[in-house]
Amino acid sequence: MSSSDIFIGETIGTAILILLGGGVCAAVTLKASKARNAGWLAITFGWGFAVLTAVYISGPLSGAHLNPAVTVALAIKDGDWSNVPTYLAGQLLGAMIGATLVWVAYYGQFHAHLTDKEIVGGPGAQATTAKAVEAQEKGAGPVLGVFSTGPEIRNVAQNLATEIIGTVVLILAVLTQGLNDKGNGLGILGGLITALVVVSIGLSLGGPTGYAINPARDLGPRIVHALLPLPNKGGSDWAYAWIPVVGPLIGGAIAAGIYNVAFA
Amino acid sequence: MSSSDIFIGETIGTAILILLGGGVCAAVTLKASKARNAGWLAITFGWGFAVLTAVYISGPLSGAHLNPAVTVALAIKDGDWSNVPTYLAGQLLGAMIGATLVWVAYYGQFHAHLTDKEIVGGPGAQATTAKAVEAQEKGAGPVLGVFSTGPEIRNVAQNLATEIIGTVVLILAVLTQGLNDKGNGLGILGGLITALVVVSIGLSLGGPTGYAINPARDLGPRIVHALLPLPNKGGSDWAYAWIPVVGPLIGGAIAAGIYNVAFA
Amino acid sequence: MSSSDIFIGETIGTAILILLGGGVCAAVTLKASKARNAGWLAITFGWGFAVLTAVYISGPLSGAHLNPAVTVALAIKDGDWSNVPTYLAGQLLGAMIGATLVWVAYYGQFHAHLTDKEIVGGPGAQATTAKAVEAQEKGAGPVLGVFSTGPEIRNVAQNLATEIIGTVVLILAVLTQGLNDKGNGLGILGGLITALVVVSIGLSLGGPTGYAINPARDLGPRIVHALLPLPNKGGSDWAYAWIPVVGPLIGGAIAAGIYNVAFA
Amino acid sequence: MSSSDIFIGETIGTAILILLGGGVCAAVTLKASKARNAGWLAITFGWGFAVLTAVYISGPLSGAHLNPAVTVALAIKDGDWSNVPTYLAGQLLGAMIGATLVWVAYYGQFHAHLTDKEIVGGPGAQATTAKAVEAQEKGAGPVLGVFSTGPEIRNVAQNLATEIIGTVVLILAVLTQGLNDKGNGLGILGGLITALVVVSIGLSLGGPTGYAINPARDLGPRIVHALLPLPNKGGSDWAYAWIPVVGPLIGGAIAAGIYNVAFA
Repeated sequence: MSSSDIFIGETIGTAILILLGGGVCAAVTLKASKARNAGWLAITFGWGFAVLTAVYISGPLSGAHLNPAVTVALAIKDGDWSNVPTYLAGQLLGAMIGATLVWVAYYGQFHAHLTDKEIVGGPGAQATTAKAVEAQEKGAGPVLGVFSTGPEIRNVAQNLATEIIGTVVLILAVLTQGLNDKGNGLGILGGLITALVVVSIGLSLGGPTGYAINPARDLGPRIVHALLPLPNKGGSDWAYAWIPVVGPLIGGAIAAGIYNVAFA
Repeated sequence: MSSSDIFIGETIGTAILILLGGGVCAAVTLKASKARNAGWLAITFGWGFAVLTAVYISGPLSGAHLNPAVTVALAIKDGDWSNVPTYLAGQLLGAMIGATLVWVAYYGQFHAHLTDKEIVGGPGAQATTAKAVEAQEKGAGPVLGVFSTGPEIRNVAQNLATEIIGTVVLILAVLTQGLNDKGNGLGILGGLITALVVVSIGLSLGGPTGYAINPARDLGPRIVHALLPLPNKGGSDWAYAWIPVVGPLIGGAIAAGIYNVAFA
Repeated sequence: MSSSDIFIGETIGTAILILLGGGVCAAVTLKASKARNAGWLAITFGWGFAVLTAVYISGPLSGAHLNPAVTVALAIKDGDWSNVPTYLAGQLLGAMIGATLVWVAYYGQFHAHLTDKEIVGGPGAQATTAKAVEAQEKGAGPVLGVFSTGPEIRNVAQNLATEIIGTVVLILAVLTQGLNDKGNGLGILGGLITALVVVSIGLSLGGPTGYAINPARDLGPRIVHALLPLPNKGGSDWAYAWIPVVGPLIGGAIAAGIYNVAFA
Repeated sequence: MSSSDIFIGETIGTAILILLGGGVCAAVTLKASKARNAGWLAITFGWGFAVLTAVYISGPLSGAHLNPAVTVALAIKDGDWSNVPTYLAGQLLGAMIGATLVWVAYYGQFHAHLTDKEIVGGPGAQATTAKAVEAQEKGAGPVLGVFSTGPEIRNVAQNLATEIIGTVVLILAVLTQGLNDKGNGLGILGGLITALVVVSIGLSLGGPTGYAINPARDLGPRIVHALLPLPNKGGSDWAYAWIPVVGPLIGGAIAAGIYNVAFA
């Protein structure tokens, strides 16, 4: 693969991943969306099939890492870091493009949601509902969850542990794909299996922190949340932002270590 | 493929697509349906598996485009427009047949729904419930959603953008299938992957407009809605009808352009 | 395939189909089940994956018809009726075994449900709730839906049409599998595709009649319902019983005709 | 396969199975989880995709039994018991590790749940809500369901029968995989099919007992529940513990017998 194919593939792929992944959060969260309150199953299948779609589209160009934790784990496993910067750059840029496209696709819904006094509180930024007050205390705006993850219970050790555990599962599944593929098609089917693994992680380990398990998935959209001209959007919760970056990177490294010891 | 195989395949395939796709909307919407209020997840999986079923049945005859945006994108990609009229004719005819079959399968449910005063308002076409008033103002009848799409927030620029974005994702997934297929089965599995991509688009990008992402899917059933002898059916919302036709065609052309620049 | 393999395969396969299919109806319907009120999506995925499980287990023995409509359609397509009686006998016996196993697995739940006065009415078989009265008027007992299908709106022409339409879709998908399989695995994957087609039919066409689309699936369990010593079970609704037998057989014949004209 | 690969593979695989399977129970059950009350469909897909993830990761090392009922059934089928102790040891150890990781990932949620007076009753271990009283009478703590299964209706004969029936279905599906695989990939796809069979068993046969269908899946986490320092956790319901061990083993043996008679 050429550097430009890697960069373009990761940019397109991660943009589609975040467009569809952030999209399902917007669909389930925002006022005036047909999918409002469609539930956790919709969110987890939405993210899983976002992975599936992004992997099949970008796979032929860049191999579809779409996640710095995948890139780092493969670099550790293979001992080759030469393309890592290109991958990471494409992933972060793509994530920001994807989050911006969510805003375009749900433009009216964002406005309707953020100008609803029941949701954001009245004039003067004084939160008037319990939900709005809680969000303000967390430094998290009322639509931040469409962009980035956040914990239900704020506890650095647990939040970090949950992100590490989820990412270890993801990366082990990615790294063992090659072992399952014995020339009979799983390499191609890998995108489907990986997508269902992501659904699994969401259903099973998403409860405490919302399962970033991907630094680009969280950081890119958070930057876009900070930049977009959304009314009453509130803070971007930068105090939490390092956990969904560092946790998945640690998880990726641990998974690569387990792989090199037990599977290689 | 012969012209007659293309025409017959597209007619049968699009009829099944709309029978099953419109069917799930009827199932979830109409009074006296066992699936009433089954939710957005049911609708998105219903449409996705409608694609799957239609693709596997019509694929051997016509290649299963089932969507003018697919046909146009492939024509742009390949530079061959010779079969385009045959595809489009089969797709529109099939969509109309499919919508009619939904009416047959849910005959009693349509009647029960449309003669329920809570839903359509009392005699004299005077809408008496908030829902009925809102539908009348939109020029949309109380069961139009079983046939065609409509926006939650009416905004030409956003509605068009949402349809374009959703269709770009769909068509990129369709066009890159050939790249994923290296003689090990994905060509055959493509129908399953495409179906799950459609579930993904529905979950993630369906909230604002109901994701037509297919001109025939929207226009054919809208014509049937206008023609069917349904009591109290209300208007067919022709003011909106051009958006789910033009948006997906633009999206298909953009996706073909991206493909030709980045992937070919 | 030997006759004994066909008979044993169809008996085991249809028993598993009805055990799992009837099982999900019991799970969602009966008192004291963890899955109570899990919804229409659970029912449709439950039946679809019941097909998947039964097809993979019985396929190597009998080819996994599991449905008289499939057997008849294949006989019409191939012009070979020699094994039809063996298939049908295994299917009916298997369906009865499966329905009996549902009763075993949910023994306590059936008893708890049928001795609950809110559900079946008080002593003297006098129905006291609206739901119980409605069931009695239909000649349908309060748990008949765990065994057999029944219409929401009783209309011979529509009920028959809905069953025919659903079965045509199913049988077309079964018959075209051979065309999709070009030596690269769909023959084996066919069970998965068929299962998802059944989910699709359930989601989209199950609303009016509960989608028998299989004479054995409806008749076998109805016989078992009539025979089992269930308290307060009510009638078996024999007046409706011919529709889910005749409709699917007509649908299978129509699909075979379409196949022979358009696809062969 | 070497003994150490078997032991390591089964330990890692069963740990992931229980981490994800127990995880979805925690996600749906516990206070302050984003997935709380996501419903039975979430639980059954969560367990099914837990199987999928664990099978693909551990398959290359140990063949991914992950269940003593699978190990025993294969030993009966093949007449080779030499590796059985290694498999069972890895499975039990893995299940205990997995249950412990659920506790780590949901640490704050467990504490929030078990210190909520509405859920566990007030000081002095005096249960004050109907739910808490019922749990105490069963000898089952308020979070035991996150670790182990328990019946809705306590009836040894039915509970045992339900676990046997569910396991027969599972093991037949596992044993017939080899027959479906004719060199075209199902061996590799088997993990996906098995996962969907597990979803099916959960949807259809999980209502009465919560479908252990795997002795290690139930016993390992129950031991961990007894050992963990959880506040107000209540009893581990050891009176029931033998049923989800003995039932699945009987089911595995019956399935192996059916296989040897009808399929071999």
